[in-house]
Amino acid sequence: MISFTCDYTEGAHPAILGALLRTNMDQQPGYGEDCYTAAARARIREACGCSGADVFLLVGGTQTNSTVIATMLRDYQGVVAAQTGHIAVHEAGAVEYTGHKVLTLPQREGKLSAQDLNAYLEAFYADGSFEHMVFPGMVYLSFPTEYGTLYSKAELKAVKAVCEAYKLPLFVDGARLGYGLMSPACDVTLQELATLCDVFTIGGTKVGALCGEAVVFPAGNAPEHFFTLVKQHGALLAKGRLLGIQFETLFTDGLYFQIAKNAIDRAMELKELFVAKGYELFLDSPTNQQFILLTEAAAQALDGKVAYEVWERCPDGRAVARFATSWATTPEQIAALSALLPQAYVPAP
Amino acid sequence: MISFTCDYTEGAHPAILGALLRTNMDQQPGYGEDCYTAAARARIREACGCSGADVFLLVGGTQTNSTVIATMLRDYQGVVAAQTGHIAVHEAGAVEYTGHKVLTLPQREGKLSAQDLNAYLEAFYADGSFEHMVFPGMVYLSFPTEYGTLYSKAELKAVKAVCEAYKLPLFVDGARLGYGLMSPACDVTLQELATLCDVFTIGGTKVGALCGEAVVFPAGNAPEHFFTLVKQHGALLAKGRLLGIQFETLFTDGLYFQIAKNAIDRAMELKELFVAKGYELFLDSPTNQQFILLTEAAAQALDGKVAYEVWERCPDGRAVARFATSWATTPEQIAALSALLPQAYVPAP
Amino acid sequence: MISFTCDYTEGAHPAILGALLRTNMDQQPGYGEDCYTAAARARIREACGCSGADVFLLVGGTQTNSTVIATMLRDYQGVVAAQTGHIAVHEAGAVEYTGHKVLTLPQREGKLSAQDLNAYLEAFYADGSFEHMVFPGMVYLSFPTEYGTLYSKAELKAVKAVCEAYKLPLFVDGARLGYGLMSPACDVTLQELATLCDVFTIGGTKVGALCGEAVVFPAGNAPEHFFTLVKQHGALLAKGRLLGIQFETLFTDGLYFQIAKNAIDRAMELKELFVAKGYELFLDSPTNQQFILLTEAAAQALDGKVAYEVWERCPDGRAVARFATSWATTPEQIAALSALLPQAYVPAP
Amino acid sequence: MISFTCDYTEGAHPAILGALLRTNMDQQPGYGEDCYTAAARARIREACGCSGADVFLLVGGTQTNSTVIATMLRDYQGVVAAQTGHIAVHEAGAVEYTGHKVLTLPQREGKLSAQDLNAYLEAFYADGSFEHMVFPGMVYLSFPTEYGTLYSKAELKAVKAVCEAYKLPLFVDGARLGYGLMSPACDVTLQELATLCDVFTIGGTKVGALCGEAVVFPAGNAPEHFFTLVKQHGALLAKGRLLGIQFETLFTDGLYFQIAKNAIDRAMELKELFVAKGYELFLDSPTNQQFILLTEAAAQALDGKVAYEVWERCPDGRAVARFATSWATTPEQIAALSALLPQAYVPAP
Repeated sequence: MISFTCDYTEGAHPAILGALLRTNMDQQPGYGEDCYTAAARARIREACGCSGADVFLLVGGTQTNSTVIATMLRDYQGVVAAQTGHIAVHEAGAVEYTGHKVLTLPQREGKLSAQDLNAYLEAFYADGSFEHMVFPGMVYLSFPTEYGTLYSKAELKAVKAVCEAYKLPLFVDGARLGYGLMSPACDVTLQELATLCDVFTIGGTKVGALCGEAVVFPAGNAPEHFFTLVKQHGALLAKGRLLGIQFETLFTDGLYFQIAKNAIDRAMELKELFVAKGYELFLDSPTNQQFILLTEAAAQALDGKVAYEVWERCPDGRAVARFATSWATTPEQIAALSALLPQAYVPAP
Repeated sequence: MISFTCDYTEGAHPAILGALLRTNMDQQPGYGEDCYTAAARARIREACGCSGADVFLLVGGTQTNSTVIATMLRDYQGVVAAQTGHIAVHEAGAVEYTGHKVLTLPQREGKLSAQDLNAYLEAFYADGSFEHMVFPGMVYLSFPTEYGTLYSKAELKAVKAVCEAYKLPLFVDGARLGYGLMSPACDVTLQELATLCDVFTIGGTKVGALCGEAVVFPAGNAPEHFFTLVKQHGALLAKGRLLGIQFETLFTDGLYFQIAKNAIDRAMELKELFVAKGYELFLDSPTNQQFILLTEAAAQALDGKVAYEVWERCPDGRAVARFATSWATTPEQIAALSALLPQAYVPAP
Repeated sequence: MISFTCDYTEGAHPAILGALLRTNMDQQPGYGEDCYTAAARARIREACGCSGADVFLLVGGTQTNSTVIATMLRDYQGVVAAQTGHIAVHEAGAVEYTGHKVLTLPQREGKLSAQDLNAYLEAFYADGSFEHMVFPGMVYLSFPTEYGTLYSKAELKAVKAVCEAYKLPLFVDGARLGYGLMSPACDVTLQELATLCDVFTIGGTKVGALCGEAVVFPAGNAPEHFFTLVKQHGALLAKGRLLGIQFETLFTDGLYFQIAKNAIDRAMELKELFVAKGYELFLDSPTNQQFILLTEAAAQALDGKVAYEVWERCPDGRAVARFATSWATTPEQIAALSALLPQAYVPAP
Repeated sequence: MISFTCDYTEGAHPAILGALLRTNMDQQPGYGEDCYTAAARARIREACGCSGADVFLLVGGTQTNSTVIATMLRDYQGVVAAQTGHIAVHEAGAVEYTGHKVLTLPQREGKLSAQDLNAYLEAFYADGSFEHMVFPGMVYLSFPTEYGTLYSKAELKAVKAVCEAYKLPLFVDGARLGYGLMSPACDVTLQELATLCDVFTIGGTKVGALCGEAVVFPAGNAPEHFFTLVKQHGALLAKGRLLGIQFETLFTDGLYFQIAKNAIDRAMELKELFVAKGYELFLDSPTNQQFILLTEAAAQALDGKVAYEVWERCPDGRAVARFATSWATTPEQIAALSALLPQAYVPAP
């Protein structure tokens, strides 16, 4: 059975395991004060081109999102997100658990538009009773989105401009950041991204680490006593070295980008494979998550041999199937999928 | 520099790293539905003698404590703990952040007594205005305590009896459980412990794992939808395999107990060493944390060569120094300490 | 200036002030243990036909909603409401502040349909990842709605049936309950309503009281220690007599219904007046809130003499204006409005 | 039966009821935007000598305390209070419900000393692990305290100096402020108090109002969007006029102080009466709450005729009985108590 269900089916990139082994018996202080975390921070700052950035290493994605959001919002504020944003749907209400509303806006292919954002903000302050409502306090977007799509640099700039007009910090959830940055469709660099938002995360869990999300406050603008807040949220790892070693490894010699590129290469092959066999795409994703309209015949052909996730059902019975590649996906796995997949239809001559 | 500052200065027991390497490219589902977590659960159930136990693997200690406490309490309830309980002092208000008060009682050597607990509960319900107060909703104790001390079986039974009389669940924080169970002073087995409380944790972080705390509900009494609640608290690891592999390894062939015993053996050597050299103990700890009254001369002799933690200061200037051993402490480290430590005084002939 | 801006522009019905005066120096215990609260409870139970109901008197609407919702939900649950529900929009995130998500569904004229509710619930449990999402934990609807509309008995039964199928309690926010029950369009009695939901409120603030919302748990099903929870939410009035006296008065000799009927009578006159003068209704409300499409000419004619609220703007420039009547609205005020209001257009002969 | 159980057994001062009657049918906007609230604010500012103060009128004491504390603290902070502070004991965990710890310090006669406060703060920041703990974020004290005692001006200045040294706002809970200010033992004026703290409340509930607590931020230093935060806490009254009218009345022609003085005069008579009859005081309270050591014989003599509250029990069987006077207590009630109370002992000739 080959699994394309998600991008966290394997352990860690071998270089990470090697580093864990190599450093194992070295005694280090806890809570992120170890030398590996210090090194990881330095390399992340360098990669982002922000020498003054505050960098924190947390463990998981939902944890990171709710900690960042809760600590950057004031009590009277909520976080603005696309209706399909991860925090709005698939985080078990972790943001609300901290007392804040997720203010949802319409989405297109998983993306929030600057126009919709601006319209919402204008309407909010034009409403005579806005003081009885939850104030927008920050804007959240994911890069890539939950549908694998990407914001262009122009789109990010437009969103950022609206945020600035309303003094709202912009938070970019980069749980799959590497897969976004290495997409051929991406016109933003990591260093540019760092100038276009107020806080962003660099996902490790889905890009080669056992766990770990780096939170970057590019302008050194972490909330006061963020260390204590992280602990209060249950997000402070005693053996911070586990995160430090992993991120130090990922950000040495460009490993993070290199292994992310593997996922993209495999994803493009996978997409071409489906298209060549006549399958329709649910949407044209430029990253490691591919959404295919899968026929019943294909489902049967793959049954028990290839795993993927069914996102939803089309009225015509086809499944919207998500196939995710990752740093660990091999050309052999793509070839095996190819061998199993029937033609969707016989193209007209 | 040799560090006795805490029991999480190294990485993981080599057997754990070996298992991570061995299983690394095996594709597994996320969120604790992998085969390793299943195996870990089975072995923990067996070790605890509770075939019907609910077992969950979380990441860190503060996270685990606040998740367990918040999900077992009703809104009108708080958790009763010794004044020195970890949740009352060193968790950055994580319990209060979930909306619950920590109701503190006096402690002796870090322990809560059944008598004090009973007196408090009697007084609470005798107070005519108790409906204006926070109700006691569960009892928390740590085993070993923050001072390395242990409850005897009789003491645990007495606390449990009071809890039962007032229908309060008893939660045993076992962040250092292995070090408690392997102490020569311990008269409770893991299986007995499981019958004496309603929920307990088996600490991995401090006993050989990179991270991880197992939460055991011996009677299969996990709060409804605990999985979702764990996610809401940011405590659900995407790559649950990281926790599963570690706990499966620790609970195979008694590794957890065997490596915990090493810490105890080293701790007893360390204690004897200090006593033999004429140092006074702050208290007589039977586990891996030793509290020594350290003279200024000793502090100078160790300076830059041996690290430990200063807990507090005596009026006479001596430091209450905590020396912690762990699964990783070697006889060589104890010998090196011995070589450096001066006599506290010249004993009378 | 005559104000139709809302239904809480005056103080209290004179009978309430009379009762406050009459009882003023009578010494009573606090916190709802006074004889007036006991009498109010008895009368409310009687009016609702539920001799076993739990009845609590709280102070304000947002307070009552968030207290009821937070204490009836489990942590992993949210409350389902129409997108226009008061709790979803105009309560400053009070529900989220207690840690719970408001799960919004589409609305028609302010109402939630049983079909939409059922479709949402079916889809929720059909989604393979529902354990990562906020569970629906109760259903909230307002009667009348924020648009003055009413659920028919059949609609309420249909919603209730879906709730029962999914074991969800149904909460009816009756901030304007009297104005709903006294509408000629209403086919539900108070006693029937009590059998169709699990908890509901009887609004005093908008129906003749200075303040006060009665919470009724018809089946005696108040959350355990609701008294303490009310206090924890800051909703327990020390001089509970203030609420007791008011509700006792309102539920003596049908005063609540009688004064609510005044608001309805005036509202119907007001609606007829606008219709007769050629104004279009935004929607046809059967209760005390009337939504009129107001021309610029009318706005100018009323300016400085009649106050109302502008809800939103039509693309053609007309205002959606809300005119609210209340227990205190007089025929003279309607007549004055009539005298000032110009014809909207000259009807064709 | 005459009740001295508390200071909120009657309704409101007749002048307040008169004002409610007089203004009843005047149409006013809601939510504190009425002309009475504006007038009340102006008069409170004038009485406090702070023309730039922010003044908000909330409904109840626990509500006010938790709203003020939650909105002035950052997430990583708790509020420092005496162990007997109302927020620490008798508010059902309302502060913790908002996510904040109450950090308790020892008390003497209900008071927190500047020395104890300073010692705690010094020790906190001297502790190497303070970043793992809840930071002190504000200081709470009650004036008078829960034991009826008062801080002298020197004591307040000393506490304030410590607060300033650590940049902690000082919050004075004045639920019974009038009874403190009118005590012959009080050496602080309202205007001085306003310069000695960062926020304080002026209790209406216990000093002649039906309900209502005025929150004063003397330096115009209310938390941003306090209006919205008040609403989020369920503390915003729709008919704000109810609070405005009451506080306008209380602060017209010194009524608040005049009726508070009645309580003090009666309390002094009551104390003298007990002392003259040979009863021991539990402590010598200078305000309207008197704590008497009541013999069993006295309890029997008063049984069914005079009500009071038993605070606790002495080992010798005597009750610590609290007798509270109020704005409404009459000389006749004191005389009636005197007639019923037996001599505690026959004094030696």
